Amino acid sequence: MSDVYQRSVELHKKNNGKIKLESKIKVENNDDLSLVYTPGVAQVSREIAQNVNKSFELTWRGDVVAIVSDGSAVLGLGNIGPEAGLPVMEGKAMLMQRFGGVSAVPIVTNAHSADELVDLVTKIAPSFGAINLEDIASPICLEVEDRLQDIGIPVFHDDQHGTAIVVSAAIRNGAKVVGKKYEELVVVVSGAGAAGLAITQMLLGIDRVDGELIKVDGASRVKEVRLVDSKGVLSVDREGMNSWKEKFVKVTNESNMVGSLADGMKGADVLVGVSAGGIVTKKMVEGMASDSMVLAMANPEPEITPELAREAGAVIIGTGRSDYPNQVNNSLAFPGIFKGLLESRATKITIGVKQRVSEVLASLVEPVSDKILPTMFDEGVAKKIADAVVKQIEKEGLGRV
Amino acid sequence: MSDVYQRSVELHKKNNGKIKLESKIKVENNDDLSLVYTPGVAQVSREIAQNVNKSFELTWRGDVVAIVSDGSAVLGLGNIGPEAGLPVMEGKAMLMQRFGGVSAVPIVTNAHSADELVDLVTKIAPSFGAINLEDIASPICLEVEDRLQDIGIPVFHDDQHGTAIVVSAAIRNGAKVVGKKYEELVVVVSGAGAAGLAITQMLLGIDRVDGELIKVDGASRVKEVRLVDSKGVLSVDREGMNSWKEKFVKVTNESNMVGSLADGMKGADVLVGVSAGGIVTKKMVEGMASDSMVLAMANPEPEITPELAREAGAVIIGTGRSDYPNQVNNSLAFPGIFKGLLESRATKITIGVKQRVSEVLASLVEPVSDKILPTMFDEGVAKKIADAVVKQIEKEGLGRV
Repeated sequence: MSDVYQRSVELHKKNNGKIKLESKIKVENNDDLSLVYTPGVAQVSREIAQNVNKSFELTWRGDVVAIVSDGSAVLGLGNIGPEAGLPVMEGKAMLMQRFGGVSAVPIVTNAHSADELVDLVTKIAPSFGAINLEDIASPICLEVEDRLQDIGIPVFHDDQHGTAIVVSAAIRNGAKVVGKKYEELVVVVSGAGAAGLAITQMLLGIDRVDGELIKVDGASRVKEVRLVDSKGVLSVDREGMNSWKEKFVKVTNESNMVGSLADGMKGADVLVGVSAGGIVTKKMVEGMASDSMVLAMANPEPEITPELAREAGAVIIGTGRSDYPNQVNNSLAFPGIFKGLLESRATKITIGVKQRVSEVLASLVEPVSDKILPTMFDEGVAKKIADAVVKQIEKEGLGRV
Repeated sequence: MSDVYQRSVELHKKNNGKIKLESKIKVENNDDLSLVYTPGVAQVSREIAQNVNKSFELTWRGDVVAIVSDGSAVLGLGNIGPEAGLPVMEGKAMLMQRFGGVSAVPIVTNAHSADELVDLVTKIAPSFGAINLEDIASPICLEVEDRLQDIGIPVFHDDQHGTAIVVSAAIRNGAKVVGKKYEELVVVVSGAGAAGLAITQMLLGIDRVDGELIKVDGASRVKEVRLVDSKGVLSVDREGMNSWKEKFVKVTNESNMVGSLADGMKGADVLVGVSAGGIVTKKMVEGMASDSMVLAMANPEPEITPELAREAGAVIIGTGRSDYPNQVNNSLAFPGIFKGLLESRATKITIGVKQRVSEVLASLVEPVSDKILPTMFDEGVAKKIADAVVKQIEKEGLGRV
């Protein structure tokens, strides 16, 4: 691991970062200049002044995403500040470009409160076609995302929903491999931070609107989700939960389990770990239903090693790591999602779009236990996701008119 | 003109704008991915968290400028809003890349008050190595620029100082052609907006610090500037001037001229027009000193046509247009300036740096009356300006340590 660290620092230093701005048009003489700049550009400005929507076709706005982070929850490193978050956002911009073919600009900021972040994103929104919120601490990220849903361009928090989309695709395919129905699954989500809550929403077909949880008609949903935090299963009788957990307890844990993670896992079909390394034992997995699925995504150390999970009887096993089969990696989804959102000139993104992406992502492989998801390098993943987004945006009438 | 408008709109439409984000590093497999993104990037983040200055070498921060505008004073079009300003900022980003070899990102915003703009730029500063303020209405742009001088990266309002640098270079060389000393020139500046005030500062070697005008030791200066607005020459006895004009009147018009632009121009060596088309007559130029210089830069129609100015006896004549000799175009300076500011890891920019750039720009041609400035397409202009900036930043001790 120290080798990859050293090589990475050297690579970043040598290249002075990883991204750059390029012109799409050559400027070789005064005539070129008169078209891309004054006086010609004045007419482009006039046309946009008359119809702001034209900014999406006459400028790069229709092709560019802002990746906004305050550096308060970067990777597993915590609150390391905006500058230290920048290399991660740059990496994200690279992946957006490499896999989705769209431009992305890292905006790291020392705006940290929900009010400041909402204000910042609103103020810069005229420059961009969509916003990717990234590595913002929970629960502020939830409030920020909710308050930005009506600014006229899609705002998507990848740490929440990108993860949720890929996890639910993995669960869809995992269920298929072991012959269970998605709609009959009992899923334990270990970790009630932003990702855990978003995974729960996704699995239950629930949108957040102005901070309220709304079950969406026609959405697909598993039978039950049990949400577990460091104090155990979220249940109606528990006290001292934050307001988000209070809301989620009303839509989860229908069997009203109480107790520890081990208690919550009893009889469950799927464990989704977005919590902490090593907290799941072999015995806990043995208590799950037969043909169980374990997606242990804590980084870099999973909740339980694939080896132990297999010994305990799990049939489908995934982690967040690239050195085991079944890497559950949100980078699979976001390049295609943003490509589709930009292409469709979407004004927002919904649970309908997210669930559709999950279904399409699942459909891209004929799943077997060691390959329940495509990889980022499989041809056409982003393109197919983007096409699905475009269709769904059209179906829901969310394109710019 | 309508042809260039139509061709420009078509070009913008066909290309979906003019700029795009590119990766500097190829990502072809999981090993590449582990270096540019997780897990390798975590070490890059850690190093920056320990020393924020490393963000300038380990990310693209050391190579990228934000071009910030609220669209309140775009070209001659006025307050057309951020989206309509975007194609102009994109054009600027192109020129920055084409001539300076640096990356630039347009940030157009619906932050309009000085407080909002200062807040916005401060909040996004961790993402960038320098800030180019652009097309922000006067006098707000003056306050915004002044309040942003200590945010730790250089903040430069090109409409003010880019123009001032190129104008003062033109005047240096024009004086040389007609055999006058720069230090003995009497210059009339027609137009007391942001550009007119900055030109005055530049010609008099004056810095603005916290809104006060400070004569800088060792700076070069012409003998006298007479600043003229639509009501005539700024003079101590005039009433109803805004607070900026009140400050500038104390450092200008030492001969205490009163009256109209025609009165102000009497006996002057140089007229700089940053005002309105057609307001200068042949007779007014005839009233200037012998071997006079007229830089009539109102766009698209100059204060006086070059033909009339010549008939009236002006020897050196420039405009803002590319279809006459001696185009005085701020695009000559800013790409090299930002290249130099980034290369030197400058924390701010001073009048010393601006005057040095002006001198270097002037030195790049052996001036004759029809060519007092290089053109943008002359080889090496930006490089030589950048080198001069680097040296001056070092000399003034303004580099990041």
